[in-house]
Amino acid sequence: MKFRVWAPRAQTVDLHVGGQARAMTRDDGGWWSAEVAGAAHGADYAFALDGGGPLPDPRSPWQPFGVHGFSRLLDHSRFPWTDSGWRPPPLASGIIYELHIGTFTPHGTFDSAIERLGHLKRLGVTHVELMPVAEFSGNWGWGYDGVDLYAPHHAYGGPDALKRFIDACHACGLAALLDVVYNHLGPAGNYLGRFGPYFSERSAGLWGQAVNLDGPGSDEVRRFLCDNALMWLRDYHFDGLRLDAVHAIFDASALHFLEQLAGEVKELEAALGRQLALIAESDLNDPRLVTPREAGGYGLDAQWNDDFHHALHAVLTGERNGYYADFGSLADLAYALQNAFVYDGRFSVFRKRRHGRKPEGLPGWRFVGFLQNHDQVGNRAKGERSSQMMSLAQLKTGAALVLCSAFIPLLFQGEEYGATTPFLYFTNHDEDLGRSVSEGRRREFAAFGWNPAEIPDPQDPATFQRSKLDWKEMEREPHAGILEWHRRLIELRKSAPELTDGRLDRVRVEFCEDAKKLTLCRGRVAVACNFSGAPAIITTDGSHPMTDP
Amino acid sequence: MKFRVWAPRAQTVDLHVGGQARAMTRDDGGWWSAEVAGAAHGADYAFALDGGGPLPDPRSPWQPFGVHGFSRLLDHSRFPWTDSGWRPPPLASGIIYELHIGTFTPHGTFDSAIERLGHLKRLGVTHVELMPVAEFSGNWGWGYDGVDLYAPHHAYGGPDALKRFIDACHACGLAALLDVVYNHLGPAGNYLGRFGPYFSERSAGLWGQAVNLDGPGSDEVRRFLCDNALMWLRDYHFDGLRLDAVHAIFDASALHFLEQLAGEVKELEAALGRQLALIAESDLNDPRLVTPREAGGYGLDAQWNDDFHHALHAVLTGERNGYYADFGSLADLAYALQNAFVYDGRFSVFRKRRHGRKPEGLPGWRFVGFLQNHDQVGNRAKGERSSQMMSLAQLKTGAALVLCSAFIPLLFQGEEYGATTPFLYFTNHDEDLGRSVSEGRRREFAAFGWNPAEIPDPQDPATFQRSKLDWKEMEREPHAGILEWHRRLIELRKSAPELTDGRLDRVRVEFCEDAKKLTLCRGRVAVACNFSGAPAIITTDGSHPMTDP
Repeated sequence: MKFRVWAPRAQTVDLHVGGQARAMTRDDGGWWSAEVAGAAHGADYAFALDGGGPLPDPRSPWQPFGVHGFSRLLDHSRFPWTDSGWRPPPLASGIIYELHIGTFTPHGTFDSAIERLGHLKRLGVTHVELMPVAEFSGNWGWGYDGVDLYAPHHAYGGPDALKRFIDACHACGLAALLDVVYNHLGPAGNYLGRFGPYFSERSAGLWGQAVNLDGPGSDEVRRFLCDNALMWLRDYHFDGLRLDAVHAIFDASALHFLEQLAGEVKELEAALGRQLALIAESDLNDPRLVTPREAGGYGLDAQWNDDFHHALHAVLTGERNGYYADFGSLADLAYALQNAFVYDGRFSVFRKRRHGRKPEGLPGWRFVGFLQNHDQVGNRAKGERSSQMMSLAQLKTGAALVLCSAFIPLLFQGEEYGATTPFLYFTNHDEDLGRSVSEGRRREFAAFGWNPAEIPDPQDPATFQRSKLDWKEMEREPHAGILEWHRRLIELRKSAPELTDGRLDRVRVEFCEDAKKLTLCRGRVAVACNFSGAPAIITTDGSHPMTDP
Repeated sequence: MKFRVWAPRAQTVDLHVGGQARAMTRDDGGWWSAEVAGAAHGADYAFALDGGGPLPDPRSPWQPFGVHGFSRLLDHSRFPWTDSGWRPPPLASGIIYELHIGTFTPHGTFDSAIERLGHLKRLGVTHVELMPVAEFSGNWGWGYDGVDLYAPHHAYGGPDALKRFIDACHACGLAALLDVVYNHLGPAGNYLGRFGPYFSERSAGLWGQAVNLDGPGSDEVRRFLCDNALMWLRDYHFDGLRLDAVHAIFDASALHFLEQLAGEVKELEAALGRQLALIAESDLNDPRLVTPREAGGYGLDAQWNDDFHHALHAVLTGERNGYYADFGSLADLAYALQNAFVYDGRFSVFRKRRHGRKPEGLPGWRFVGFLQNHDQVGNRAKGERSSQMMSLAQLKTGAALVLCSAFIPLLFQGEEYGATTPFLYFTNHDEDLGRSVSEGRRREFAAFGWNPAEIPDPQDPATFQRSKLDWKEMEREPHAGILEWHRRLIELRKSAPELTDGRLDRVRVEFCEDAKKLTLCRGRVAVACNFSGAPAIITTDGSHPMTDP
């Protein structure tokens, strides 16, 4: 077995394996290597730089002892895949279900999630999207604090369990997507900076240092991330990746990191012979992300459409705080349904500047639309879902608009049956960092007028436990009815081709702001929405009766 | 006369004019206004914020008393232009002459520069490019420290003198370009930050705070800069702008500032009915800058090609320090002649990363090529020109390659006759800032092993005086011969259409690294270069004899 590690600044690198330390040899480009005959799959190892203590491998495939422990060798060829010939359903006509392994099931593991795939299959979604699984500090957390980007989290079951999960998804016809975080690394167990210039002096906002994508030494950092993406797609058989917060990925290079990544993934797609998808989360409202590379874009497949969420949420809940100040009218909601972005060059009161750009010529399936997602639920003080903020009628209206929109619909775990369990912000950091996270969370919401005592403590194990789905709930009303509503809407979407037609200029919307009525018409399908709270007659014959209610 | 100023954070704004202060009225969007019946062209005025002292207008058209003084009203309609019907020669087949008003003539004014236009006309250049003229601190300087971006420098003669200069250029068929600095503002007299959020917390490197182009309030900052560009083109009749260091212009918006600017300039071009050019100085080797907007680019007309300069300079001088470490072979020079960028995705030892991108499909006239420019001369410790570093033969070789290249050639004032006067770094700041600039310059070069006592003091008036061209020199040999060499090369370029053919794939270069010979072939024109220092026979019949010399 040949061990390799990139440590361009180190004077010496020692490999710890099999109870021994041995000096590694310096190769070209800052790489070090050591050949160890006896080491094989399952062997634990670490690297020591310049006589320091053993550190996990930056490209560790497995961290059975957590972020501070030894790495473990993994031979990807050993897994008995059963999905040969697998072809994912097209993303453009797909329906995504976002789930968090730790709270999706009582056990919170990949293997226990397999037992619930039947529910997703019956629901009718086509793509399962896992919140980040890369090894992060502690035994539970959202996953955006990952530091060993190549290692599936030990508490979820590690590498083989993840492969079993994906194999099982494919066995029942579900594609699997993974959320990956390339804009920053977590605060605990982040040893990358000791190995090389992984970080730039620029800040990624609240999350610490930005990743070095255009400074000295950045070629290898870009390889580190691109190779990571390729690994998930090739070795774990993922069908695509969701790229977290790409607006915090800073790169002034002539070849932007995202375009490089998209190009490499397209090459892998050709080599593997199955479709691979890249989906960006972005705050930029920038069509360039999903514009084909041939037309000067970065060539990603789709991007999350926050504007549609905000427009829909603001209409349904009446909330106007924070970024919802920019939304609230039916006109905005209608505009989002027909143009994807509400802010496509318009002045934003929240941002105090013009924002975004028209996605001219781009189809609706370049955008992911949702009523909820982990952030929109979990970043609320009390992790309330839409079902806690909306009436049953509102909830059903929201679901109908999402699932009949021109966008790729996304549901967040439990949304399909109006789960009453919250999705709270939870962490399991060491004591010091944990205290600062808890205090930070309280301070953040106190600034918005909350009583700090009311804010659930992220470090309290009960906060994590309370966030787990209650699988019995969907058997009771009104949850069974909500589930049936979603199931039938999904069935409709799959059977009516006009609903997956990406041409935004074919989306017809009529609305009356005063009467609080809106109708979305897509071919034979009309979604008549009454936001007034009172009975209303809505005609949908296309003669625009709503402008004169 | 209606006075207006943008001061969104101010509680009160007073207008000082005619010896009186009067309160201005708050309008929409943070603008303030005051109507003053008596004030007209030539009246001096200033604004006072929240009861503070009078400050110059951020959009001051005229600063007769320097950067700290009152602004003066200017009525652009009063100038007696004589250039009606003026149409500039096309930039693509143009030849640019870069000059610095303060040192071009003994008097260092716009009016005295007019007297020397005959020389440029005889030389044959088509475009005159002025180093920045916006009001900067002191009576002399390079101009990159400008703070009143709308005001032509008082010591150069102010607004009317600049108009006379441009009118005279047009009268003798010369187009006029202006160097503008939108990436930072100078350190002295920079009052913009008191008026509004002109700056972001990001740094523009050595030059201080970056301009706020994508944060809160940035719409008006972008207008401030775009309106400035439009003013020079519309009210001063400039034919184009050179945008300084666009790599230090930071903008994450979906519509990049440079693309917005290019779009607005194209609209003005249509309105005025004459061609307008935008040329970027960029360190990014990014073809997007000069890619048409329809193809996803920013739509600028051309960009400076530093790689070609470095490749040529390194071959001619043998210098390998700093960024010249990345150059030095004839292969690099040949590659630059045929591909514009040497670093188009290649690993750069100097930058410690891959750099740049292939400008696929772009014509040669999207790039400006030069053997010298103000930076390459003036940023040397002693401001040495190529003629101080090269033999006469080398100088002529360099000139031939520049003027027969596929790029838009640019000459720096005095280059055409091998001036022996240096172009030093000179400033005329107030005492404190001046001392820190002088010390900074000494420290900078001491770090490279220079004796600080040898470094000319930027603040010493003699440093400025020594940098002025000596117009008698060109009458003597070898200068008269060098001038004739340039004149004839320009004549050749204008008479041989193959030399302005932008198709880089038609540029043929043969070279032999060992024999130090290179031949550039463009249609009927062959430039045979012998870099060996010894006599050589170079055949140019296209049979590649040089690979076997």
